[in-house]
Amino acid sequence: MTTLLLVLDLGGTFVFALSGASVGVKRSLDLFGILVLSFVAGNFGGITRDLMIGAVPPAAISDWRYAAVSVLAGLVTFYGFAVLDRLQSSVLVFDAAGLALFAVSGTQKALALGLNPFMAAVLGMLTGIGGGIVRDILAAEIPTVLRADLYAIAALAGAAVVVIGHLTDLPSTAATIAGAALCFGLRMMAIRRGWRLPVARSRQPSQDESDKTS
Amino acid sequence: MTTLLLVLDLGGTFVFALSGASVGVKRSLDLFGILVLSFVAGNFGGITRDLMIGAVPPAAISDWRYAAVSVLAGLVTFYGFAVLDRLQSSVLVFDAAGLALFAVSGTQKALALGLNPFMAAVLGMLTGIGGGIVRDILAAEIPTVLRADLYAIAALAGAAVVVIGHLTDLPSTAATIAGAALCFGLRMMAIRRGWRLPVARSRQPSQDESDKTS
Amino acid sequence: MTTLLLVLDLGGTFVFALSGASVGVKRSLDLFGILVLSFVAGNFGGITRDLMIGAVPPAAISDWRYAAVSVLAGLVTFYGFAVLDRLQSSVLVFDAAGLALFAVSGTQKALALGLNPFMAAVLGMLTGIGGGIVRDILAAEIPTVLRADLYAIAALAGAAVVVIGHLTDLPSTAATIAGAALCFGLRMMAIRRGWRLPVARSRQPSQDESDKTS
Repeated sequence: MTTLLLVLDLGGTFVFALSGASVGVKRSLDLFGILVLSFVAGNFGGITRDLMIGAVPPAAISDWRYAAVSVLAGLVTFYGFAVLDRLQSSVLVFDAAGLALFAVSGTQKALALGLNPFMAAVLGMLTGIGGGIVRDILAAEIPTVLRADLYAIAALAGAAVVVIGHLTDLPSTAATIAGAALCFGLRMMAIRRGWRLPVARSRQPSQDESDKTS
Repeated sequence: MTTLLLVLDLGGTFVFALSGASVGVKRSLDLFGILVLSFVAGNFGGITRDLMIGAVPPAAISDWRYAAVSVLAGLVTFYGFAVLDRLQSSVLVFDAAGLALFAVSGTQKALALGLNPFMAAVLGMLTGIGGGIVRDILAAEIPTVLRADLYAIAALAGAAVVVIGHLTDLPSTAATIAGAALCFGLRMMAIRRGWRLPVARSRQPSQDESDKTS
Repeated sequence: MTTLLLVLDLGGTFVFALSGASVGVKRSLDLFGILVLSFVAGNFGGITRDLMIGAVPPAAISDWRYAAVSVLAGLVTFYGFAVLDRLQSSVLVFDAAGLALFAVSGTQKALALGLNPFMAAVLGMLTGIGGGIVRDILAAEIPTVLRADLYAIAALAGAAVVVIGHLTDLPSTAATIAGAALCFGLRMMAIRRGWRLPVARSRQPSQDESDKTS
């Protein structure tokens, strides 16, 4: 189990770091700025999770592999951006993969440390959305979680599968893979088909928006 | 005392979650995005406080009632926004109430864990302003604490009342209620009457501003 | 050694607090808002570092001198802004000094607590860049680390000098001063001469930018 958890965590770090580095390239950052953005986007969610469950120093700080994977993602993006960019909306796809991997690994880690199942799922969701939030805040953009369709709920759905597997004593590898697949699948369908949850009717949304920007 | 602390904390979470959800509705987020913003705005200050005093996992993660109260606030806002919106500047009022409740509960909790009185007041203030800061950052707005009049100092004044009550052995319930009332009152007066602390004279403020926005 | 560490840490807090307060004055904040921005900019990096290495409560919360130094910097800026402002680009210079002091003090503290050398340097770098990041995020600007030349890498270079000194048993005072001088020097040269690391070629940067702002 620990190996699976590590692979998921490092995989999530890698793809979130790719998405962070892609934002950095689009912002014309220099190489090192891109590496910093890779590290922060790749590791912020996991660091937050570890701080919250009292696992200090966080794995991203005590284990060199997290930094290595982040740097690798930054270099791949820097030298291969022309290729990556050809893949349409690569940031969104990497982001969805990272969301899925972190949501399930965060939930597993929280369960292993004895959190109650409901809050383990919430913490898994927060781990998943944390990296993208900080990437977008650093780039001074509205966070994806606030713009995107079925974002946080896809993470929660993936985390819930892991929790249900845990409660029903299913093999954790199967539950973890199913949870990640569900989260990634929901998110990709939401992107492709524009699936959306209901939106509240605000009385003067356009006016509010113009107030903000004027 | 523990019951009072819990009630204040949950009350502050509820009103901050209302303010977060209101921002979410104005931004046309979907239902789940609103719930996430409710949870983050309602619990960020308290989570930060708990991390700083080493109380891990934070109450907002280990105790399901914080999540339940946040979700409730999100649902109330989502389905009742038309009503809430009729109350003029509801976000500001909820924000002021949350500021007051968190400032005193944060101070009480820090005192209970043995922090020195001065820093307990500072931590109470930070707990109070934290939720609003992260709500505004997520919505890509200038944080209220930087725009508003008598914001952080109202929180500090409320926290100071609690500390003085603690040092002079007053009944803590009385000091807590007085502190919350002082903070809320100061903030509402500042909003209604435009009370402001002195502002430094910058040599070319308007030019700086136009640099920023151009 | 502990004394040196404390002096560096308080010095870094002071100059970062100056930079935070300068941003506050330019934004026409009131006196107390400026003090809050001073405290946050001055202490965010150190608090993050302390949370990550499990040193709770963080020094900035448990030791009154950090708050005192931050308030002092805020008052100096508030009453002496006309003077400070005459020094060209004072925010950038204070920022560079804070970056250098925190990078070396963060690395020293992480080494003292037994982190492996590579991650101690990374943590030192994060300590250095953290204060500026949160200052800029609060002011709703793109963080300096993403705009500036040789920023994070200057911090990492300073941290690396401290780590190399530690591994080769050099006197830590000498290594610390050399590291801080290297970081500050690199950053000032980058500002004056426009030194830059290579930038990746993005296919349509201008179009991306216009997408963002439209």
